[in-house]
Amino acid sequence: MATSASEYAQTYAKEFVEQWKDLLRIPSISTYSTHVDEMQNAAEWLRDHCLSIGMTRAEIYPTKGHPVVYAEWLGAGKNAPTVMVYGHYDVQPADGIWNQDDAFEPVERNGNLYARGATDDKGQLFIHLKAFDSIMQATGHFPLNFKVMFEGEEEIASHNLNAFITDHLEMLMADVVVISDGHIQSENDPSIVYSLRGMTYMEIEVFGLDHDLHSGSYGGIVHNPALALVQILSKMHNEKGHILVPGFYDDVVPLSAEEREALKAVPFTEEMLKAQTGTDKFWGEPDFTVQERIGARPTLEINGIWGGFTGEGQKTIIPAKATAKVSCRLVANQNPNQIYLLVRDYVAQITPPTVKSEVRLLSVGDSALVPLDSEAMQVAVEAYAAVFGQKPVFMREGGSIPVVATYHKLMQAPVLLMGFGLPDDNLHAPNEKMSLTMFHKGIQTMIYFYENLAQ
Amino acid sequence: MATSASEYAQTYAKEFVEQWKDLLRIPSISTYSTHVDEMQNAAEWLRDHCLSIGMTRAEIYPTKGHPVVYAEWLGAGKNAPTVMVYGHYDVQPADGIWNQDDAFEPVERNGNLYARGATDDKGQLFIHLKAFDSIMQATGHFPLNFKVMFEGEEEIASHNLNAFITDHLEMLMADVVVISDGHIQSENDPSIVYSLRGMTYMEIEVFGLDHDLHSGSYGGIVHNPALALVQILSKMHNEKGHILVPGFYDDVVPLSAEEREALKAVPFTEEMLKAQTGTDKFWGEPDFTVQERIGARPTLEINGIWGGFTGEGQKTIIPAKATAKVSCRLVANQNPNQIYLLVRDYVAQITPPTVKSEVRLLSVGDSALVPLDSEAMQVAVEAYAAVFGQKPVFMREGGSIPVVATYHKLMQAPVLLMGFGLPDDNLHAPNEKMSLTMFHKGIQTMIYFYENLAQ
Repeated sequence: MATSASEYAQTYAKEFVEQWKDLLRIPSISTYSTHVDEMQNAAEWLRDHCLSIGMTRAEIYPTKGHPVVYAEWLGAGKNAPTVMVYGHYDVQPADGIWNQDDAFEPVERNGNLYARGATDDKGQLFIHLKAFDSIMQATGHFPLNFKVMFEGEEEIASHNLNAFITDHLEMLMADVVVISDGHIQSENDPSIVYSLRGMTYMEIEVFGLDHDLHSGSYGGIVHNPALALVQILSKMHNEKGHILVPGFYDDVVPLSAEEREALKAVPFTEEMLKAQTGTDKFWGEPDFTVQERIGARPTLEINGIWGGFTGEGQKTIIPAKATAKVSCRLVANQNPNQIYLLVRDYVAQITPPTVKSEVRLLSVGDSALVPLDSEAMQVAVEAYAAVFGQKPVFMREGGSIPVVATYHKLMQAPVLLMGFGLPDDNLHAPNEKMSLTMFHKGIQTMIYFYENLAQ
Repeated sequence: MATSASEYAQTYAKEFVEQWKDLLRIPSISTYSTHVDEMQNAAEWLRDHCLSIGMTRAEIYPTKGHPVVYAEWLGAGKNAPTVMVYGHYDVQPADGIWNQDDAFEPVERNGNLYARGATDDKGQLFIHLKAFDSIMQATGHFPLNFKVMFEGEEEIASHNLNAFITDHLEMLMADVVVISDGHIQSENDPSIVYSLRGMTYMEIEVFGLDHDLHSGSYGGIVHNPALALVQILSKMHNEKGHILVPGFYDDVVPLSAEEREALKAVPFTEEMLKAQTGTDKFWGEPDFTVQERIGARPTLEINGIWGGFTGEGQKTIIPAKATAKVSCRLVANQNPNQIYLLVRDYVAQITPPTVKSEVRLLSVGDSALVPLDSEAMQVAVEAYAAVFGQKPVFMREGGSIPVVATYHKLMQAPVLLMGFGLPDDNLHAPNEKMSLTMFHKGIQTMIYFYENLAQ
């Protein structure tokens, strides 16, 4: 016990990677009903590992879907802060062509570990267990109360997680929540995501006819519902991409000058867009930079549209109805239910009297904005700076992780999104990998974080 | 032979109906591959019947699909005009709930004959054979050269008919073509359709992305192809339904004052629209009446639209592409290929630089406008007036019968659309029927027409 936690982690780096490989060898693909046993195996592996590193309680909780693993070490006492780590042990299928025979037999190559789940999220959740392990081995004690919750349904929409959290809120309660399930810009450019967008998902339907009509008999004398839908949807944005729904932007928290400055640090060029999407043409509100539009501005997108004859060849009908799936990504402090009402009322207002329309709400998810001035956030910044030699930039993430908003709301705790992946990790794709450097830097960062958060 | 053709037809009215029933008993459903034998049976029945009434040649011509029956009587000599009758012996399936056990066992009720094919088109084509039969029996001679062509694929898009006509043009050549495959307004209100619309059928696709994108990562920074398609399609019409494609109306033959007056005679109320379509809201160019819009004005309709996620629930994607089927109904003298070019160029012009688009031509069909001042048309008017006690009104039909344009173009002959159905005949639906009064009035009308056309 003469060594520090940081030195311990360096000494046992090879052993940690071998343990990580053991976890990666379990093909815990949540979407395959044939893999129920593998899901259970992964949950048991994690439970056993938590106990082996000195956590005092570790249990597998069944849900209506795949089980949740919960483990804790509460030896820091009631006056010490409690941290909870969220992660997920389920992985995507391993479709496609890999450079290795078996996506579940990890391969080290060029400083990376290749395997399905390497970065998403087995590698990243394991960083936290190894940080805990190192501190415990080096000091015989952990400075905080430490809880982990690993779910098995993140890749299939976490349908049972909210109920689990609500049912076990007291057990899960923490002062800080940490999630490592994302990426930073490069091995030398750390970043922290402090904002996630919320969502309102709707269906807009235009109708009014009993049945599909013959376009020769009724074309030009009744309002084609597909045309009316198109006309309604065309009034959602102006030509520049600004959303025209009245009141839509009313509750948006404006970007501060500091935030705008910080977001500039994240590079995004036309070449990068082309490589990622196939188009090199940016589009959207010209008053905001691309980085601001991704994370700090709400959107309204058509996710799907359908109506009438969509087969091969031709059918000369006027469709009886036409429908679109439309979703809004929301930022703080937009209320997703309020946004639904605004869209519903606007659609009612612009629907011509010659057709009928309906806007159905499919789901809502809150946005999340983690205060940059919380103590935990400051410690996270210092931890990255200490290990990476550079302060992290703050990023707004365009996506939505509803569980972040759930934690935030239920626990009133800051949720720190401390990613250790890299942009080229191929998550959800063939040849998923995690940089070994990032894995080890991640452990060092979390050791720093846990040791200093307790001060 | 002391009697007139008209008297002969009255005397043998019952026998004619019994013969018609024999034809209706053959379930010649062209769309069922199981009914190939029945199609052959119907063709043979017609061939034999043509010979039995004194036609001198009757043959069954195989096609790639169902056969064509051709028969002729050319005894009027080279100086007499030649008339050709087109009809079809195939019928729709007899789905749905009928008031009789068997849709192919004809039932007389309330002055109607109920059976699949009663009016569409076996009853109407048989009117011509019975007019010929009556004149031959009464006078021993027919005043014109008489040709009939009955196809077996009208209900399945007549794919092989154009080739048959082109291959046998000399045999089919005529001075006047008569088609009875439509309806008049009521048993007391005859009408003649003198205009059919043409068609340009296209697919409009908007694309530009390699693959579907995550709406959280790319929403608001790339142009959603489904949104761009919606924006493009919303620029096809103004709010009142006027088509905005430059040059679209340039070649439209304006309605004459007489035509506008004549079209007023066809009633079309909001109540009628409601009963037929489920909406009581008319829509379209306010400078034209509903009747004018149906037949005399071109249209541009969305027949189908699709893109992105269209299943149950939600998927937060930006679709890589979105597509619409769009067709134009055209009037004289619009050129369908030219209309395609106009739409293609307009779409190219209004496609924003942030996406790509393509307009694909699927098919074209010419419109047809039968000159009202042809001699044959005048005789047709007199024939209806003589039998119905009232002059027929002239109607423009909204639909397209491409074969009419084919005849018109290849034979340079007027094509007379002399329908004897009624609006409530339930064609393509359960309980198809034909009015027995209309069947007999039809025979009388055609006897008058054939006897007087030869004068």
